[in-house]
Formats: sequence, C-alpha cells, structure tokens
Amino acid sequence: MAAVEKAGEFVVDSGDGVWITDSDGNRYLDATAGLWFANVGHGRGELADAAAKQMRKVAAYSTFGDVATRPTLELAERLADISPMADTKVFFTSGGSDSVETAVKLARRYWHEVGKPDRTHVIGRGHGYHGMHAAGTSLSGLPLNKADHGTLVPDTATVTWDDPADLAAAIERLTPERVAAFICEPVIGAGGVLPPPPGYLAEVRRICRHYDVLFIADEVVTGYGRLGHWFASGRFGLEPDMIVTAKGLTSGYAPMGAVLVGPRVSEPFFRPAGGVWWRHGYTYSGHAMCAAVALANLDLIEREDLVRSAAALEGVIVDHLGRLASHSAVTEVRCGVGALAAVQLKNAASAQDAVRAARAHGVSTRAIGAGALQVSPAFVATSVDIAAIAAGLSAALDTLVEPHIPDPRSDGASR
Amino acid sequence: MAAVEKAGEFVVDSGDGVWITDSDGNRYLDATAGLWFANVGHGRGELADAAAKQMRKVAAYSTFGDVATRPTLELAERLADISPMADTKVFFTSGGSDSVETAVKLARRYWHEVGKPDRTHVIGRGHGYHGMHAAGTSLSGLPLNKADHGTLVPDTATVTWDDPADLAAAIERLTPERVAAFICEPVIGAGGVLPPPPGYLAEVRRICRHYDVLFIADEVVTGYGRLGHWFASGRFGLEPDMIVTAKGLTSGYAPMGAVLVGPRVSEPFFRPAGGVWWRHGYTYSGHAMCAAVALANLDLIEREDLVRSAAALEGVIVDHLGRLASHSAVTEVRCGVGALAAVQLKNAASAQDAVRAARAHGVSTRAIGAGALQVSPAFVATSVDIAAIAAGLSAALDTLVEPHIPDPRSDGASR
Repeated sequence: MAAVEKAGEFVVDSGDGVWITDSDGNRYLDATAGLWFANVGHGRGELADAAAKQMRKVAAYSTFGDVATRPTLELAERLADISPMADTKVFFTSGGSDSVETAVKLARRYWHEVGKPDRTHVIGRGHGYHGMHAAGTSLSGLPLNKADHGTLVPDTATVTWDDPADLAAAIERLTPERVAAFICEPVIGAGGVLPPPPGYLAEVRRICRHYDVLFIADEVVTGYGRLGHWFASGRFGLEPDMIVTAKGLTSGYAPMGAVLVGPRVSEPFFRPAGGVWWRHGYTYSGHAMCAAVALANLDLIEREDLVRSAAALEGVIVDHLGRLASHSAVTEVRCGVGALAAVQLKNAASAQDAVRAARAHGVSTRAIGAGALQVSPAFVATSVDIAAIAAGLSAALDTLVEPHIPDPRSDGASR
Repeated sequence: MAAVEKAGEFVVDSGDGVWITDSDGNRYLDATAGLWFANVGHGRGELADAAAKQMRKVAAYSTFGDVATRPTLELAERLADISPMADTKVFFTSGGSDSVETAVKLARRYWHEVGKPDRTHVIGRGHGYHGMHAAGTSLSGLPLNKADHGTLVPDTATVTWDDPADLAAAIERLTPERVAAFICEPVIGAGGVLPPPPGYLAEVRRICRHYDVLFIADEVVTGYGRLGHWFASGRFGLEPDMIVTAKGLTSGYAPMGAVLVGPRVSEPFFRPAGGVWWRHGYTYSGHAMCAAVALANLDLIEREDLVRSAAALEGVIVDHLGRLASHSAVTEVRCGVGALAAVQLKNAASAQDAVRAARAHGVSTRAIGAGALQVSPAFVATSVDIAAIAAGLSAALDTLVEPHIPDPRSDGASR
C-alpha cells in the first residue's frame, strides 16, 4: 500500500541499461534487473515503440471464444517455437502468480478429464515461491508468506527442497492416486537463489514419471534466457508437462505471463472430434499491447544474442561475486548457474542494512531468502558492470562488520 | 489456448473510438468496449504516448519494501481522492482476478490481526463473477466456471443473488463468528447484467453491519464511471470496507487493477507504532507504465467529462435497446443502470448464433449469463452509435426467428 513519496522511500525515477536513477538524481547499478525481469536492460526505446504502435492500433480486445488479436496469435506461435516441449500450446496470463493458478487448475482439470478426479494434490518445495494468489500462497515454501490467512487451497504440500526421497515419501503418504502434480523451480529464486543439488532434478523428474505425477517447471525467474538457455527445462533436460513463465517474456516492460502446456496435458482440450471447453481465462489473457511488447523483446534478445550473453555472465559472476564468499560478513555465495547469484549473509537480520549500505555504494540490490542479497543483472551487463556490482557490495558488506582497530587512547574499559 | 489465425476466428486488427476493424477489413460497432474495459474508446493516442514516455524512462522497477516508482505513488493518491471511502489505501494488482485474491486474503488477514482468526468464510452471490484464480473461482456464482477442479478455496459459499434473507440465513448457518466477508457486484456483470432488485443492496449492507461482516464491493465492471458515478458504491451509498477494481482504471490499455481499502481494514497494517507487515504483493503491483497509462486515462475521463457521458448513456440505452424487449426472440432487456444492458434471448442456446449474426450486421457483442447479449459501450458512444447498435442487434435477432412465409410452390411435403 503506497502513498506519495515520503522520507526514506527509494523512488526509482528512470533507468538506462543496467543503471537506474532515483528521484534525487543519484545513479545506481541495478544488480537485480528490477524484480528479476529487466533482462534487456531499462529504457529500451524499441519496446516503448512497440507498445505505442499497438496501443494506437488497438491496445486489447479479447481472446475468449473465437476472438483474438494479431500479436497474441503471433506470440503463441513464437513461444511454441522456442519451447523445449514438443507441440506446445500457450495459455496467456498477466504475470507469474496468474500462471501458477492456471497451471494448478489445469493440472487438476486434466486429471478430471482423463477419469482420475481424485488426483488433486499438488506438491511444492521448501523455500519455493509460486506467487501470491490463493493456490500459489498455499504452495509457498516460505512459511511467513503463507501464515495467518487460514486454509487457502487444501490438497497442497511442501517437501524438503533438496532431498528427492522426501518427494517420493510424500507421494506414497498421500497415495499416488491422489497426487496431481509436483511444481518445482529449477533454480529456487525468491527463496534465496538455490541451485539444484547435483542429481536432484533428474531424480525428482524420475520420481514423477514413476508415480505418473505431472511435472510443472516454475520458470518465472529462469525462463527466457536467465540460465543461458531459453529455458532451464532445456538446460537440465527436464521434459516438463507444463512450464510456468512471466517476467523475462516482456523483460517486465508490460505485465504478461504464459503457461506453456505440453501435448499430454493439452490433449483433452484439443481432441479432433471437439475438445473439452475449459472455462478459464483472464480479461487480459493475450493482451495485444503486452503481446506486441513480448514480440519486440524476443526480437531484441535474438538480434543481440542475449541468451548467449546470459550464458557468458555465468562465469563472470562466479569470478567477481564468488570472491565475496571470503568476506567475513558472508557465509557463501550461491552462483554458477546462469546470470544469477545470492550473497548469503552470516547475520540474516542485517540484510536490510546491507541493502541500504549497497545503495550508498551505488548498487541497488534486495534481500531474499534468509538474509541473502539478490544478484540477477540484465543480460546486457558487461564484465565491468559485474565487477562494479561486486565492488559496491563488498564495500557495503564492510559496513556490516564492526571495525576492530585498537584505539590507542583506549584504556580497555567499556565506553 | 491460441494458435495463428484459423478459418472461423474473429481477429480484431484495429480500433478507433467505438469502432473496431477485423483482419479482413470489416468494420463493426463495438457494443462491449472489449471485455467491458475500453471506456474511453479504442486507439486513443494520449494513452499510447503516456505508455511510451514512461517505458523510455523506466517501465517498472518494484513497489516492495521501501521501493517505489513515481507514477505509482501519484496514482495511489489519485485513487484515494476519487474513492467513495474515507482515508482509502490502495493495493495495486494487474487485473480483476488479482484484486479478488488480494481482497479475500486481506479480509482473512484483517480478522486474524484483530484477534478473530476464525472469521474465514467468504460469501458470494449466485450469478456472481469474481475472476478465475483459485479464490475467485471458488466464489463463482456460475457453476460451470467452478466445476471439475476439486475444492479450491474452502470456506466459500454462494447465496441467492436477489434475496437478502438468504444472506442472513447463510451467516446464521455458518455462525457469524466464522464469516469474514460478503463480496458483491453492485450490478452483476458477466453473470448477465443483473441490476440489483430494489432495496437489495441497502438490505445486504445492513445485514453485513448487523453481523459485523466485511462488505467487499466487486466493481471490476462498474468502477471508474460505468454507472455514471466514479463508483457504484457511491451511486448506491454502499460504504464498503473494500472495493475491488480493474478494467476501467486503464480502459484496458494496460493490465492493471487496484483494491481500494477503507480505514477499518487497513488499520492493523498502518498503526503509528508500526503496522503489521503483510507479505503479499505481485511483481507488477504498481507497474510504472501501467500507472502512467491509468493516470492518462483518468485525465482523459475528467477532461472529456466521460463519467457524465456514461450517465447520459443510461437513458439513451433504455430508449434504443429497451425497444428490443418486444422482439419475439427476446424475453427481456436489462438496462437502466448506467452504460450497461443485456438483451436476454428466449432460446439461450442461440446466443452464439446471435453473436455471429450481429457481426454480419456490423455489431460486435458477446454472449453472457444464460443466453444474453452484452451491451457495455465506450463512454464516448453517441446516441447515433447506440441507435446503430440497437438496429444491428435487431437485424441479428430477426435471423434467429424462423420465417413462416408460405412457399407458393410447396405442396406441403417435406423436401
């Protein structure tokens, strides 16, 4: 809940590539690309032009029934082309939370249509983040996000984030005949940038196949290039049944998400003799202006080869941010999986102080997980930019550590 | 789920005021303003300019923690100013479905914070539509929208749409100490444009006060001028605890919604000594470009006095659409409450035929409720436009009625 600018607020006034400027004119390197979305950098005129052009034509109409708009149709084809699943169908939303609700409802509805309506349970992972609507909140692996709202969506469960055996045990406990799907961020994002333990993803994928449980990849953070592949599902060979996406689809320039749906799940709804009509959709599903922005964004990513840039940033981030692991305020730096890192603070309670100190040293970051600092730069960031982000964070971390320089005037007594 | 243009699809290529043009170059009067949203008409350059200008500056950053962007802060103040509630706080979303999830979670969380965590039940009305996320689907008064997904959000119930006594009975049955809120469209929209029976709204409002149940006005359709007032809550003197909005906020030019929160519900979160931190928010909550578009849209509505125009359309619609009530394919025309009407067909199964016939007669409409045709024109529609919409619909309705002209060549045998 917001009100007009007050003392102590950090008001972002403008942006240009990896830089942002606040309302006092101070400039910062944007370590986070907004909320993990501004992958092509801020202030890209191409995207502004695409939006304005479509809005002058028609900003939006409808994608219900037999109605559509042109950019929506084009974008659906384009996403099917880059999808790591064969024969992908696309369901458009306005963001990641919407995509999660859509995937959960669709998983359950799929099982209903194939005669197994008891498969209603959806399982997530500890530290997982799946948006803030009712189903996503219920699937949260971040207890504070879920607390104190009563039961939202029942038939949801959370398993240990790093132990595949716990998933198998949960499925057995619930009984496989009652489990609809497992939802999994290939790299946990808001929970603190947690890359998958070695072998974890292959094993949970195997377990889902074994129990005939749908595998939903939540790629809101990882989709559209962040891991140096169009999708983490491609990088890790996940062959999911659905992929939940948003953020990078438009680089955040317009609110849009998409659920990519594989052939198994779409089948009941696209039968040649006439599929089931699934009554689900949003006013802004496939919004024409947002679709035009997404198309321009994908053009930009391809023209500037930015997925490859993201891949190259992986090593650069390991080189520069990795060094912070030896800082006395830090326990570890999680990196090595695309253009992503988290600097884990020893003292989780100092995270907000670290964020403010980073700003004072010219870097915009934010606290995620249990006291970690988020690094998810735009793909256009250079190695000089990454080095400068690391230097700014290092200087900020120094302020967290009490100086232990002996004071020559000190007589040893407490003052 | 969409694919590139196929035979039989109605692809809207461009729009201009109350007109749209399909991909074959055919023009139609837009009877619905898209999905009830294009209140200022299509193709307004002012909104395209506002979007592009903000996107060149910074399309979005974040509104989490102490971070904000300028148009977001401005828009929050602007909405507080036009809100029919005193001391309104604003929670931004990307559309109506999001606003419903937010209001439901906030209602439950409010009760938790004031020491009554058992107040979890939310009650909606038959024929009501509250979006398609998990909570909104559960609150649907349209059974087909809810069916076959298993239980989404429990502690939801639906009461008869037109009998306040049924609300009181439901509260008594659940026990008042377990009811969090009643959610109510002042005029039911997607359920078929059902204006409130005389005295209905005042009585349900009284019942909610009596049982200390929060009153949530779902104004996704009626908000921002559709009923000739900024909000239906103002027109009907509802004094709600929260108002759920979207569509008209941006005239649909960019995906955005807002929950307007009255002082009772916001109090625990804004205590002078430090309010409770509610961990809820979306990546695109308060999206800077969307907020800039909303501001430009509100400017346009004020400069062109379009709320007054919507008020004037009420009588024009009664005059022209009201006449269709005597058509032999029609049972009634529901109108007389703002720039809204529904033409109820005798044969509900003919609604899709009627929609196609209307297109053939130059009018774009759609089927809502149980076989009704939606009329919710842009506020810039003239009386000539409304007359033309009525004439087009009349001609379409004629095609639904079998001609009973005897064929002189007929010998009476079936051919």
